[in-house]
Order: sequence, then C-alpha cells, then structure tokens
Amino acid sequence: MSSSRRLGVDVGGTKCLAVVIDGEGTVISEQRRPTPMAPDLVLDTVAELAQAMRPWDSAGVGMPGLVTRNGVLRAAPNLVGIDDLKVGELLGERLDCLVHVDSDATCAAVAEWKFGHGRGVDDFVMVTLGTGIGGGIVAGGALIRGANGFTGEIGHMVVDPDGPPCPCGKRGCWERYASGSGLAWLASRANGGSGVTRIVELAGGDSSMVRGEHLSAAAREGDAAALAVVDEYCRWVALGLVNLTNILDPALFVLGGGLADAADVFLQPIQRWFGELLYAPDRRRHPDLTFAQFGERAGAIGAALLAAVH
Amino acid sequence: MSSSRRLGVDVGGTKCLAVVIDGEGTVISEQRRPTPMAPDLVLDTVAELAQAMRPWDSAGVGMPGLVTRNGVLRAAPNLVGIDDLKVGELLGERLDCLVHVDSDATCAAVAEWKFGHGRGVDDFVMVTLGTGIGGGIVAGGALIRGANGFTGEIGHMVVDPDGPPCPCGKRGCWERYASGSGLAWLASRANGGSGVTRIVELAGGDSSMVRGEHLSAAAREGDAAALAVVDEYCRWVALGLVNLTNILDPALFVLGGGLADAADVFLQPIQRWFGELLYAPDRRRHPDLTFAQFGERAGAIGAALLAAVH
Repeated sequence: MSSSRRLGVDVGGTKCLAVVIDGEGTVISEQRRPTPMAPDLVLDTVAELAQAMRPWDSAGVGMPGLVTRNGVLRAAPNLVGIDDLKVGELLGERLDCLVHVDSDATCAAVAEWKFGHGRGVDDFVMVTLGTGIGGGIVAGGALIRGANGFTGEIGHMVVDPDGPPCPCGKRGCWERYASGSGLAWLASRANGGSGVTRIVELAGGDSSMVRGEHLSAAAREGDAAALAVVDEYCRWVALGLVNLTNILDPALFVLGGGLADAADVFLQPIQRWFGELLYAPDRRRHPDLTFAQFGERAGAIGAALLAAVH
Repeated sequence: MSSSRRLGVDVGGTKCLAVVIDGEGTVISEQRRPTPMAPDLVLDTVAELAQAMRPWDSAGVGMPGLVTRNGVLRAAPNLVGIDDLKVGELLGERLDCLVHVDSDATCAAVAEWKFGHGRGVDDFVMVTLGTGIGGGIVAGGALIRGANGFTGEIGHMVVDPDGPPCPCGKRGCWERYASGSGLAWLASRANGGSGVTRIVELAGGDSSMVRGEHLSAAAREGDAAALAVVDEYCRWVALGLVNLTNILDPALFVLGGGLADAADVFLQPIQRWFGELLYAPDRRRHPDLTFAQFGERAGAIGAALLAAVH
C-alpha cells in the first residue's frame, strides 16, 4: 500500500461520513454531513465534503444499494427517489478525477480485508447487520464483484418463503430476522407472548421503542425472556452464516453493524447454533467468527481503499 | 489447452465413469464399472479403470462429497462407509502420478467452463439437479474453492427451517424441493390432494414410482395437475437461483442433471419465477439460464480437466 492520502465517503441513509486515510489506513481527518433527500443534492454534499478535505490523491464513495462496476447506483431502497444515478461519472466531472464507487458493504469488507480482522485472509465474508444486512465477499484472495457488481446482497437470501414481507417485495428474507431491525421485531413478537417486562422497562416502558441495546442489556442481567430472544435471534444469524458457508466455505466471517457493541452477548450463541446447523460439523474446520474492527467508519475507510483494489 | 491426453474418473453413487479426453475436450475413450460398496474397493475400481485406459498424461477424479484441497474425501453421504478417505494420496501411490481430486459438481462446473456453455464466462454457477443438488462456482474468472475446498454445497442452503428433514440432519434444505428427488416428492405430495391420475398412469399406475420423466411427459400433454407440480417445482428452483444471484451475481447459471432432458418443460417457468422473485428485477441484467452441454459425462470430463485449473 502506498503512502498516498486517500479520500473515502460513505453515503448512508441519514448521514454522509468522509475520511482521509494514510497508507496504513489511519484516519487523518474526518467530516460528516446529513444526507439530503434529493439525488442531486446528495452528490453536491459528497462533492463539497471532498473539496473541503483536499489534498488527497484518490477518491472512493460507498453507496447503500446496487452499484454497477462502472459506478452507477441502480437502486437504493434507503435513499428516497434515487435510482440510476451515475455517481462515478458525475462526481468524477465535479472533482476532476477518477472516483471509485461501490456498495457500502463491499467498502466495509475492503476495510476489514486490508486493515482489519480480514487482513491476509483469502476467503472471508463481511456481514453488516444493520437496518438490513449487507455483505462483501473475498474468495481465493480476490474481492468478488459479480457480473454486474451486485454481489453480496446476502440480506435478501430467502430463508423462509412464508416469512414476513420484506420491503424488497419478497417474504422471509434473511434480514427480516437477522438484522438489527430483525432483532427488534423478534423482541416485539416475543412481547406479544410471555412477558418481556425487563426489556420493555429498559426501553422506557414503551414496547415499540425496544432496540437491540435494550435486549442485550436485559440479557446481560440474566433476564430469561431476553436470553430467549437472543437465542432465537442468534439461531437466525447462524442459519444464514451456515448457508453462506455451504456456498462459499470461508475461513472467516466478520460481523459488522451495531451488534458489534454487544459481542459478549451474541458471539457464543451464534457459534453454538452454527455448529448445530452446519452439515458434517465434525468433518471440517469451522470458519472463525469475529466482530468488525472498524465501527461506523468501516464504509468510509473501505471507500478510500477502493482505488487500491480495483 | 495443451494436446495431452487427460484421464478423468467420476465416482458416482452407483457407477464409476472414466474418460480420456484430448486437448479439445473430446472424449477419446470411455469405460464404466459399478461403484463397489467398500471404501478400499472404490479406490481399486478407480485404479483399475485408470490402468486399463492408459496411456494418459494427467489424471483427475470427481467424488460425491466434501473434498479437501489436498484430495481427502471428508464425508460422502451417498457412498456407504466412506469418510476421511485420502483419495489423492492413495491413488497417486497406486498410479505413480499426481492425481487431482475434487467434488463431482466442481468437476461438472469445470467441464462447462472450459468446453461447454460456460466457456469464456467469468462469473457463472453450475447447478447439478440430481438426487441432491451440487454446485460449482466461477467468480471473477477463477474457480472458487473456499478455505477447505468445500464451496458449492448449495443444495444444503436452508430455504425453509420448518421444511421436510434432510439426510444432512437439517430441515428445509434447497435440495429437498429443487432436486430430482424433490420433484418426485412434490409430485407425490400433490397426489395426496387432487388427483394426479395421468402422472401416476405414466408411472405404471404406482404412485410410489413417480419420477421426473413421468411428470414432464404429463406436462407436455397439457395435464393440469402435472403443470401445477411443474410450476411449484420451478418456483423452488428459481428461489434458490435468486438467493445465489443475490450472493454471487453470476452472468450465467448452467443447470445439469436429469432435468436437462426436459428443458422444454422447465426452462420457461423457472425464468418467469426468477423474474418474480428477484429484488429490483427491472434494474439489472438477469443471468442467462441454460441446461448443461455435457450430460452424464460432465463429471468425468471435468475431472480430466482438473489438472488444467489447479
């Protein structure tokens, strides 16, 4: 990796985060702005951030959605009104340089692969457990992009065709169960049955406000209802990881997203379920399972590194 | 591809098929023997076939199961009593040469990639729909092997955790629905409801004997019950292909196995369901869908080609 200064911008549903990193992946500077609601304004914001953070030698952008290999955002469920936006071309004109663009989850995978827990690992899958689930795949020592650039949409792997509807139009997508939103849904569903009073108490007494952090806090206290939800959630996470293992046989999964803050609660049950659900579990080395090294900056750092992996 | 003579042996649950191919992938000679029921005897049979077919310049073997990168068959559900068999090492000693070993589905993928419908395609997935479902993955112009060599166990992707039990120990694996056995199961299940008399008639009047060919024959005649089963089956096939598309974004799926003989019945409904189940179907180029060029010889031809892709 050269010693050049690399700019990376992560465009999220609510905020844009820009970083400049050095050749060791260290963040030299960082700025953030709210993500505007109109497509043109999003590019304005990214361009302004990029100009404000000069000097830099290369630029990359991570977007939440389907990004083609030549930098067109084809669809982005969490960015209102955006589709078919030529992010790479339009930003390239404004900034007068080549701008690399990829999905936010691919960017997070690149960050972990180059400077995080995936360093030196030839076969690993990054799994970002947030509002949805994103993925980035490294196989045989290379980042896997696919025919269109759309690899890693692992959250829309259907794991139950009769499951709850997904905004993507299908039912029972993995992210309905195993994302951060899925965890809140499982908790609220459990609340309809036997009492989960401690979880709701921690959420300020309003069951509609239950979030992952309330659940993990109650689980840490040993609350039985919370532990049951954690167990069910971890089974769903493991089910998807087993599916990915059957397909890709990685040496490592890196889990990103908000869950990384509660590794103590989730890691062990995910590993146990993984062993129970895997085919021929005693005949193979199980993939390592770890939480991401880079937190909310993973997407921006990875975007900065896109120029190095293209 | 050089002009050398390559030996390939495909070890199946019931028979071993050996071929010698030339540099263009053309089969020069072929022999087959029943697969014996004891592990040592399987290797004897392969070695005898290999000796009988000399001269050849390289040798490869395809096995139905989990094969490590250094040629150890770790588990093989359809070969009685076989596990942890050092196929590569033991055959190498007997034949006094390097013997390449991989799973039968990976071999089939190699055959299609080098000389079949996958020729020149950088991102494709081979899907063999037989007793179970096997897979072989080419991504970014390379055969994907995984950390242990176990990629492509796509039949054990769980698509319904409450589905029917699978011999692998889990429930609702894709191959319970979308394999050749799955098709027979869906047909027999339909038989329990409204009458599928024409299908059973074609199966000689015995509903337990219903196979894919009876179903496709009845469907070709326009039999409504058969067409309904075909439709349900194709939906399950498409569901798994959509999952694989979300993960790997291939340009092409090549479908192998017995179904390839009834492409006229299955191809169109699979494509229609694929379009219905895919996320953002109008925002991307759909992968091409085709049936394998090589029939029952795909595994043996691909095994012969392993030496060229290792």
